[in-house]
Amino acid sequence: MNLSRTGTSLPDTDVIARCRRLVEPAMRAAVSRLHPRGADMVSYTLGWSDAAGRPYEGAGGKSVRPAIALLSAEAAGGTAESALPGAVAVELVHAFSLVHDDIIDQDERRRHRDALWKAYGVGPALLAGDALLALAVARLADRPEAMGYLSRALVELVHGQTADMAFESRPWRGPGEVSMAEYTEMAAGKTGALLGAAAATGVALGGRPELSERMWAMGVELGVAFQITDDVLGIWGDPQVTGKPVHSDLRSRKKTVPILAALASGEPAAGRLADALAGETDDAALTLTACLIEEAGGRDAADRLAARHLTAALDVLDECLPAAAELKELCLSLAGRMH
Amino acid sequence: MNLSRTGTSLPDTDVIARCRRLVEPAMRAAVSRLHPRGADMVSYTLGWSDAAGRPYEGAGGKSVRPAIALLSAEAAGGTAESALPGAVAVELVHAFSLVHDDIIDQDERRRHRDALWKAYGVGPALLAGDALLALAVARLADRPEAMGYLSRALVELVHGQTADMAFESRPWRGPGEVSMAEYTEMAAGKTGALLGAAAATGVALGGRPELSERMWAMGVELGVAFQITDDVLGIWGDPQVTGKPVHSDLRSRKKTVPILAALASGEPAAGRLADALAGETDDAALTLTACLIEEAGGRDAADRLAARHLTAALDVLDECLPAAAELKELCLSLAGRMH
Repeated sequence: MNLSRTGTSLPDTDVIARCRRLVEPAMRAAVSRLHPRGADMVSYTLGWSDAAGRPYEGAGGKSVRPAIALLSAEAAGGTAESALPGAVAVELVHAFSLVHDDIIDQDERRRHRDALWKAYGVGPALLAGDALLALAVARLADRPEAMGYLSRALVELVHGQTADMAFESRPWRGPGEVSMAEYTEMAAGKTGALLGAAAATGVALGGRPELSERMWAMGVELGVAFQITDDVLGIWGDPQVTGKPVHSDLRSRKKTVPILAALASGEPAAGRLADALAGETDDAALTLTACLIEEAGGRDAADRLAARHLTAALDVLDECLPAAAELKELCLSLAGRMH
Repeated sequence: MNLSRTGTSLPDTDVIARCRRLVEPAMRAAVSRLHPRGADMVSYTLGWSDAAGRPYEGAGGKSVRPAIALLSAEAAGGTAESALPGAVAVELVHAFSLVHDDIIDQDERRRHRDALWKAYGVGPALLAGDALLALAVARLADRPEAMGYLSRALVELVHGQTADMAFESRPWRGPGEVSMAEYTEMAAGKTGALLGAAAATGVALGGRPELSERMWAMGVELGVAFQITDDVLGIWGDPQVTGKPVHSDLRSRKKTVPILAALASGEPAAGRLADALAGETDDAALTLTACLIEEAGGRDAADRLAARHLTAALDVLDECLPAAAELKELCLSLAGRMH
């Protein structure tokens, strides 16, 4: 679900800036309910302060989920303000998931800074994650038309993360190998569900709840497209942009689309790739692994698959909200198709 | 919030057994939504299975929160079944909080078995806790009259836990010492809020939402009484019953009511206690510490304070639901006043 790796590929457009101006004060109001110790940690992880509590600029997320909620509400004929509770809730859930993911994956870096657990310790960071989730739920507790999608996203999110974790102990090839269908279901949960909730709550709060189910499906497709793009960046992304070490997903042996597609390609390089995945993880070996994936067509296959899911998302959008130009542009930029 | 330490002090009455028979199938239905890997961990932590996935008996909680929800609904004139969504939700949140607490406190044992993180690892256990919370929220997503209390309990719960954590770095005496008012606020959040949510959702779903606010307050008072009773057991409880090592709260230097009251007593033993708290934590030193707390009147003061909060809870109950005999009996047993 890590959307941050797209880094600079998402232009800081006027649209995003406008959404941020609406969302940030509402986020700060939500966070002010926390215990001061919890608020400090949450401010750090949201990029508002450094680990000493001093104001900080430039480490925040790109607020794409709240932007989707607000733009969906506008496209549905409502005001951006009408969708603010949904926008805040999905952004808080997103922040929660990053904090807990970094603990689970023992990732020490996030957005070019120490991960929250690295800066404050595992126990406090775990609790700060819980605080973010509690605030998200509180924000929509009195809006059942939106709460249903938030809670569905939470269940799906955890389902996807658990599936991703379970993939680790499965073989690359042969009986028990991870199928593309299983990958897609995992990505739909881990990354798609919260984007689905952003879009569905946006139209529901914007006055057109009858569009929510289809907008949920739109967000899920967008999320799968995004996750596959993120998989590509996890292998070939520039560490300066992604904020993660080079080849990080290869080092951790994550089961990502480029590798799964390469192994299933039937190309001669697939066999050599399987051997490489059973071998060392030093820099030279990982560079070779990346080359073999590309040679077996894994990178192209991933790009094509991402494009297919993005197209599915855009088709829903054209059908439900044909005039949603800003939202469409945001979706394109999210899936890395607009540079 | 660990209610399990009362151990055998809560009789497994017909009332509790009846509530359990209603709640357990509903809990199993909720858990069946999880990924199989997540369902395995949740089954372990709920006491339904061992770490190898085999059926297991006898490690479950006492289901006091769901019982409060169901009995509150009945006392409000509704059926027990009407409050099932609330009962399941509060029990899931309780299980979530125990799983995350054990990670935060690095407690290796829970209900005479390995804590979930000890059995499955920190990352998987963290995720299983998140899964429990997601299911709880999903259970009430379409019931805003109950969801409001659940989400309020979540925010208060995390607030109380954060306060408790922040207490650790504060001095025993002098500037910055923890006041009894601060302790009470912490306990109201950490332990009271979820009992408040159980009672409030119970009457709301049972058809008398106008009683919810006062029943919330009832549950909070009950929770503070319970937490203080738990503090006493954390020092003088029988390890065979509590499932925790003897003097566990003294070893971890937890700021509990018996110690805070003893230090504030002005008795000669208070000075010696302050010295002991600055010294060793071997068994002999902890035994002496426990004696000094008792000598300075800390144990009596804690018992009196617990009784005062319990009385406050029962007063609300008499006023709101004077015919609620079973609920009243349960509250008495919970605060350890019925042996």
